[in-house]
Amino acid sequence: MNLSERLLNGDKRAAARLISMVENKDPKAFEVLKKLYPKSGNAYVIGITGPPGAGKSTLTDKLAKALRNKGKKIGIIAVDPTSPFTGGSILGDRVRMSDLNTDPEVFIRSMGTRGHLGGLSEATQGAIKVLDIYGMDYIFIETVGVGQSEVDIVKTCDTTVMVMVPGLGDDIQAIKAGIMEIGDVFAVNKADRDGAKRTAREIDMMLDFNKADWRPPVELVVAIENKGIEELLQHIEEHKKYLRETGEFEARRIKNSKFEIIDLVQQKMMSVLLDKSNKEDMIDTLSKDVAMRNTDPYTASENVFKKVKMD
Amino acid sequence: MNLSERLLNGDKRAAARLISMVENKDPKAFEVLKKLYPKSGNAYVIGITGPPGAGKSTLTDKLAKALRNKGKKIGIIAVDPTSPFTGGSILGDRVRMSDLNTDPEVFIRSMGTRGHLGGLSEATQGAIKVLDIYGMDYIFIETVGVGQSEVDIVKTCDTTVMVMVPGLGDDIQAIKAGIMEIGDVFAVNKADRDGAKRTAREIDMMLDFNKADWRPPVELVVAIENKGIEELLQHIEEHKKYLRETGEFEARRIKNSKFEIIDLVQQKMMSVLLDKSNKEDMIDTLSKDVAMRNTDPYTASENVFKKVKMD
Repeated sequence: MNLSERLLNGDKRAAARLISMVENKDPKAFEVLKKLYPKSGNAYVIGITGPPGAGKSTLTDKLAKALRNKGKKIGIIAVDPTSPFTGGSILGDRVRMSDLNTDPEVFIRSMGTRGHLGGLSEATQGAIKVLDIYGMDYIFIETVGVGQSEVDIVKTCDTTVMVMVPGLGDDIQAIKAGIMEIGDVFAVNKADRDGAKRTAREIDMMLDFNKADWRPPVELVVAIENKGIEELLQHIEEHKKYLRETGEFEARRIKNSKFEIIDLVQQKMMSVLLDKSNKEDMIDTLSKDVAMRNTDPYTASENVFKKVKMD
Repeated sequence: MNLSERLLNGDKRAAARLISMVENKDPKAFEVLKKLYPKSGNAYVIGITGPPGAGKSTLTDKLAKALRNKGKKIGIIAVDPTSPFTGGSILGDRVRMSDLNTDPEVFIRSMGTRGHLGGLSEATQGAIKVLDIYGMDYIFIETVGVGQSEVDIVKTCDTTVMVMVPGLGDDIQAIKAGIMEIGDVFAVNKADRDGAKRTAREIDMMLDFNKADWRPPVELVVAIENKGIEELLQHIEEHKKYLRETGEFEARRIKNSKFEIIDLVQQKMMSVLLDKSNKEDMIDTLSKDVAMRNTDPYTASENVFKKVKMD
């Protein structure tokens, strides 16, 4: 059997192999995804995000287990921070969620960010498609960090759970302001700590400024003790219902397709740019000229742009 | 006097205006920067980064004050998290560092991330040039978050200070792994808290794996009490000396010019792409087709790429 057939037959290794191929930009992977794309779109994609130390992995683990208990098949994609110099996922082999790892109906994968020129979003979108076609009912996308690339990823999810935690210090106001529009559901984790209720109240107050029809609920949870998990799941299901009933679900998926198309075109343009300009060491030569102040970066980039017309 | 002359004459308002123009991609700003670029390159650029809650703003404030006491002129650019939906900097008017704000030899500016299609790096690089030409001796780039876009920004700094803090929880290992190669100098802030020494030891142990010639020092600081600030400054000066003596300084600036040229070409390509494809609603139509499963995102992006050949 070829990879497509194996994936459709629920072969876990085929799914893992396809994701690796997507990460390595293997054209064969995209041929498979093109062919099987009509079979995608059934999985519900849940983003789990929030600042470092919020306990996102544990929360994802508990939500996944709760859904397993309801008979659902679960995919988990953990987007890991990466060394920007090597481009590899340092935590790619991270051992986590041990009892879920052995469950045949659960697929867990870590993905690393891929250096300066992007591609993380492309790889994550590809992995979502693989797991979707593979038959997962729910796919969790867990991202560490609050950076722009990470935000771009959770923006493509159906429901995004923003995980907050008491006592993050001064930056909490900044984080809250920046992420308020991303969260569909808020979880204040580690709610047995001092200040949890105050953090929940603060989030709730900021949500007063949100004029959208959907009012994001704020749930206190203690993930490690499995407290508040069912309630959180209920909120996610309510949001799902809201999206379906209002037509917002389709609108979001169209918007996400737009992001993905633009991202793919951008990746393609970059690879053509680097191919063409590297052949003649053009960018390297110009970089030296800019550093020596023989030219400036704006003039240099205009010259590169003229030179590497796309074809 | 025109803007160029006013900037060279040390007119603070001219500097502020130019940065706004850079943020708005006003071509006139880039004409000014092209002309004055040969006068740039004198400011020493220090990145201050680390996870939320690490106290980066306070630390930057104290470092800036210590340098002011030595008679240095200081620029501070705080890269703020932003609503990805509006593209504006929510904290743009954040009131901070009150006693520095009134100092005529200190220039403080907040910059917001700019939505899906990038541009933050471009704007930050432009702002650095403005403050450099304006005559600042040191420019601090402070970034909240540990995301890829933020990493890209600090990678262009001469010296990057990675600010850690005790008690960030499980994610700390992930953060440390991801950022270990970015930090030239490490500060463990809030070092009066439990676990500070252990955090410093853990960082130091991870640095054992770093094979580079420069061994990043790890300094315990309590920024809010001004403890360890002079020592940290000393480490920065030592790193600066190391860069100068080994020729690494020039190598880094050439590498940074390369990043900047590529970034500028990428921005230009994206704007041409969106101009051309928006005219015909091509991407919007294709997005609907993809969401409806009439086509797939890979085929759609190939069609867009063919259509919007650069010229």
